[in-house]
Amino acid sequence: MTLHIRNKDVKSSDYESLKDLVRPGHADYPAKVKYGGFSDYRGGGRLSGRMTAAFVAAGAIAQKLLSTFGVEVLAYTFAIDGAQLENPPSVEAVKKITYENSMRCPDPATAEKMRQLVFSAKADGDSVGGVVECTALNLPVGVGEPLFDAIDSELAKILFGIPAVKGVEFGAGFQATRLKGSENNDQYVIKEGKVVTLTNNSGGVLGGMSTGMPLLLRVAFKPPSSIAKEQNTVNMSQMEEAKLGVKGRHDPCVVPKAVPVVQGMVAIGLVDLMIRGGMIPRVLKS
Amino acid sequence: MTLHIRNKDVKSSDYESLKDLVRPGHADYPAKVKYGGFSDYRGGGRLSGRMTAAFVAAGAIAQKLLSTFGVEVLAYTFAIDGAQLENPPSVEAVKKITYENSMRCPDPATAEKMRQLVFSAKADGDSVGGVVECTALNLPVGVGEPLFDAIDSELAKILFGIPAVKGVEFGAGFQATRLKGSENNDQYVIKEGKVVTLTNNSGGVLGGMSTGMPLLLRVAFKPPSSIAKEQNTVNMSQMEEAKLGVKGRHDPCVVPKAVPVVQGMVAIGLVDLMIRGGMIPRVLKS
Amino acid sequence: MTLHIRNKDVKSSDYESLKDLVRPGHADYPAKVKYGGFSDYRGGGRLSGRMTAAFVAAGAIAQKLLSTFGVEVLAYTFAIDGAQLENPPSVEAVKKITYENSMRCPDPATAEKMRQLVFSAKADGDSVGGVVECTALNLPVGVGEPLFDAIDSELAKILFGIPAVKGVEFGAGFQATRLKGSENNDQYVIKEGKVVTLTNNSGGVLGGMSTGMPLLLRVAFKPPSSIAKEQNTVNMSQMEEAKLGVKGRHDPCVVPKAVPVVQGMVAIGLVDLMIRGGMIPRVLKS
Amino acid sequence: MTLHIRNKDVKSSDYESLKDLVRPGHADYPAKVKYGGFSDYRGGGRLSGRMTAAFVAAGAIAQKLLSTFGVEVLAYTFAIDGAQLENPPSVEAVKKITYENSMRCPDPATAEKMRQLVFSAKADGDSVGGVVECTALNLPVGVGEPLFDAIDSELAKILFGIPAVKGVEFGAGFQATRLKGSENNDQYVIKEGKVVTLTNNSGGVLGGMSTGMPLLLRVAFKPPSSIAKEQNTVNMSQMEEAKLGVKGRHDPCVVPKAVPVVQGMVAIGLVDLMIRGGMIPRVLKS
Repeated sequence: MTLHIRNKDVKSSDYESLKDLVRPGHADYPAKVKYGGFSDYRGGGRLSGRMTAAFVAAGAIAQKLLSTFGVEVLAYTFAIDGAQLENPPSVEAVKKITYENSMRCPDPATAEKMRQLVFSAKADGDSVGGVVECTALNLPVGVGEPLFDAIDSELAKILFGIPAVKGVEFGAGFQATRLKGSENNDQYVIKEGKVVTLTNNSGGVLGGMSTGMPLLLRVAFKPPSSIAKEQNTVNMSQMEEAKLGVKGRHDPCVVPKAVPVVQGMVAIGLVDLMIRGGMIPRVLKS
Repeated sequence: MTLHIRNKDVKSSDYESLKDLVRPGHADYPAKVKYGGFSDYRGGGRLSGRMTAAFVAAGAIAQKLLSTFGVEVLAYTFAIDGAQLENPPSVEAVKKITYENSMRCPDPATAEKMRQLVFSAKADGDSVGGVVECTALNLPVGVGEPLFDAIDSELAKILFGIPAVKGVEFGAGFQATRLKGSENNDQYVIKEGKVVTLTNNSGGVLGGMSTGMPLLLRVAFKPPSSIAKEQNTVNMSQMEEAKLGVKGRHDPCVVPKAVPVVQGMVAIGLVDLMIRGGMIPRVLKS
Repeated sequence: MTLHIRNKDVKSSDYESLKDLVRPGHADYPAKVKYGGFSDYRGGGRLSGRMTAAFVAAGAIAQKLLSTFGVEVLAYTFAIDGAQLENPPSVEAVKKITYENSMRCPDPATAEKMRQLVFSAKADGDSVGGVVECTALNLPVGVGEPLFDAIDSELAKILFGIPAVKGVEFGAGFQATRLKGSENNDQYVIKEGKVVTLTNNSGGVLGGMSTGMPLLLRVAFKPPSSIAKEQNTVNMSQMEEAKLGVKGRHDPCVVPKAVPVVQGMVAIGLVDLMIRGGMIPRVLKS
Repeated sequence: MTLHIRNKDVKSSDYESLKDLVRPGHADYPAKVKYGGFSDYRGGGRLSGRMTAAFVAAGAIAQKLLSTFGVEVLAYTFAIDGAQLENPPSVEAVKKITYENSMRCPDPATAEKMRQLVFSAKADGDSVGGVVECTALNLPVGVGEPLFDAIDSELAKILFGIPAVKGVEFGAGFQATRLKGSENNDQYVIKEGKVVTLTNNSGGVLGGMSTGMPLLLRVAFKPPSSIAKEQNTVNMSQMEEAKLGVKGRHDPCVVPKAVPVVQGMVAIGLVDLMIRGGMIPRVLKS
């Protein structure tokens, strides 16, 4: 996994204009009000996407631990701007193709459309958002504790901790609000001696517990706020209106970089819950 | 606020058929696997929507406390099945109209469409889902702590604790993934000496902190799983396939009842965060 | 277990003089400064020993759960004022005699000495303190998690939550500071195929983990502060010095009543730690 | 502050004999049972006193923060084996003398007695324990939250996390159990317009809250378990009885080294509680 962080690209000087001007759509403003001079305007400080490098590192350990229990977590780009996967990707495609293109998309044709949208936005001094989808395979039934430690509660909490996330949904998610119960319910059948469902609109979560079907969730990422296009803002030290076009190396889209972050965070959350549920022993003996 | 819980309507006998059969789309199955005989099939036990009565009660106290700091939380039905608010409702409409109709919708015409969809689904032995929208007004800037105690993290966590929730989004949410940065960014201006934004695509949240603009979030509720229509399921004690049409009093739509639940839960989350942030003093003196 | 709480004995009128005067040795003063008018001067409010009734109730459930895993918790009065158990009591004596006398002491002769000291103090309008000893038998090895969730850390934390507690020690405790390492170390031998120690100066705790030997701890209770004898104090509303002899039903000694409280609290702490350590499964199936 | 940790003195080879033999009085045994091969027999692993170096570092930061609010934490050796401070030391003596001698004792004569006891024990291949006393000056009234987050609960919890601690007491502590209420109660008077007490048997803690008088606590340290004298133990891999005289650099007394550890831990606990009580703002602005 490549974290795409190149320190040489980060220039403090690029941030000088941000000492007093707050970037529209960025956390600059509430951070400045809340933390005053302790808020670091250079590179976003602790609000920077760079913070997620640590999540990916911790996630790698969590994934290794999960793998000893047969659980596999896979994330990939589901959509960027208007380009979106038409059909659910196969597990094989996810494993083989996702890291073969810079968009982290398991379908090469969709990946190419995404790439063009990202570059087009960049050329316009603009940015685009998108959706990361993530699945966890072979989870035991019953991961998730009652009420607020439900599997969806816990994962949503940590996923919203990733910068630029604006929405989290499981299974059919917001689409489920347009389905009838008879359409949305996943009917049970017995297959090879096991209880399985014909569909997976629940995304593998019912009552806050894993169902044993693949966990499936989607995370919405907004377009990055730091764009070259000039926008209206405010000079906070002089309290007067101003114009700002953000300079420096800023991503026109964070979605591909967010793929390993989402994957890592979901793995971390699952490890936590499986330890609490006794599915991973608290003490490992050699 | 009416909790809509009428104990006389709950009949244990209606649940007898559920002793061995698991309802498609309901938490019956993972609960039975996880808790065995401790899982109560009658009425869903602790997985029942009835649990939310306590959330509403606690939420009422939280709202009273918030009101002494000028903060107001308002929830209402945004969509049920295909019927949806066309325009953002005014605060006045939300306050005046929401509790005047059984759909808890601030627009009477939309409410009527929703009502028809609910009754039509009920007549078909089916059910419908929908979306609750919630706003919090007059929040101070900076509510929300770093990383996983962000305002969106905390609220998402408790909102996913409400039964039937499948998605949570803030501001433009999943729609933000289709906007360019220059469209999604909320530009700053000065109005009456205060920094405000021209739009509110962020939903009042940036970097996990409140921006001082109205907090705005949406919660997706799936259609209830307990429907009269016959569906495929499994008899868990005999491990054989079966058919099930669920009897008893079951809601064809939980969205209207979920409105005060969402409102209460958001209030509880905000009180927690404002106490932690020192915006509400931990010790109140008379 | 008798909780010794007789509501008819609590008279609000007895507390009238305490509206402005703070009792020496009682939490009245910091509570008044911290909570102002929210501090209830009648009966101590939430700082009252009456609060411990709930601990005893919860402790009874914890003990029932522990018993299914073979663990038994036993507390008894070790000392009151100058009267103290000369020799470690046998488990049989603890079980048979402790609740046969009002002092909750497993040795009848010592109990009688204690009783006389309590009644003599009462006659003088004074009060006495003492020590509760508590043991837990048949604990598995390794209860207690690293660092601050050590078994002694967790138990000390909840024991200091009991009103009037001024000290907690394990095994030889403060006496261990006068022993040489060669005297204090509990030497290992093999007995009936099991590793045991010849002494138990550790009190069954090493490195924050249970050793498999009996857990042994002592809790120091100060003499109750509310005494009839006149003492110097301050009238807080007029900020002037005053005299106070406390009226009303106040215990001359809390130690006997504290015995089931300590026993219950230790049981609660052990249940918590054994669940966390996987020794009690988080989910019990019927 | 000197941490007394000299890495050159730690030789893994000294620990070879401990691969199978468990040291009497040391956490070797429960660690081996609990963690199996993950337990590091060389130097005690995470159960080593070396872990406390981090506590001292964190404590230094906590003390710096406390000092900006006027609070000062001071620890010193109160007793080693039979040598003990006769009178309460003055704050001046504590500040000036404690770090002038290797025993960390504010009285030079007592320090010399302590030093002789330590060296005598070392010469005998034995070890000694002792008591660290700690005070916190200028605490505001009301530090400490209800029930189990009481100031004494919180401090006891973290103090028992320090290796070799067997007891914690506040104010008169276990001695209070021998005092009458009329002796133990700290009577209130007004001095220079402030409410103060004539004595401080409470150790500055009533009802789990600070009283504004000096916080005073004592921590009992057992004699170190790793001694050269031969003792009975068990070979765990062969499950047979054995003899063990521990080789390598092992302290004959940990008390002087524990002085900055206790001081740091108390400071950390106080910072936590003062932040929670709103006495230290959660967000510091420059």
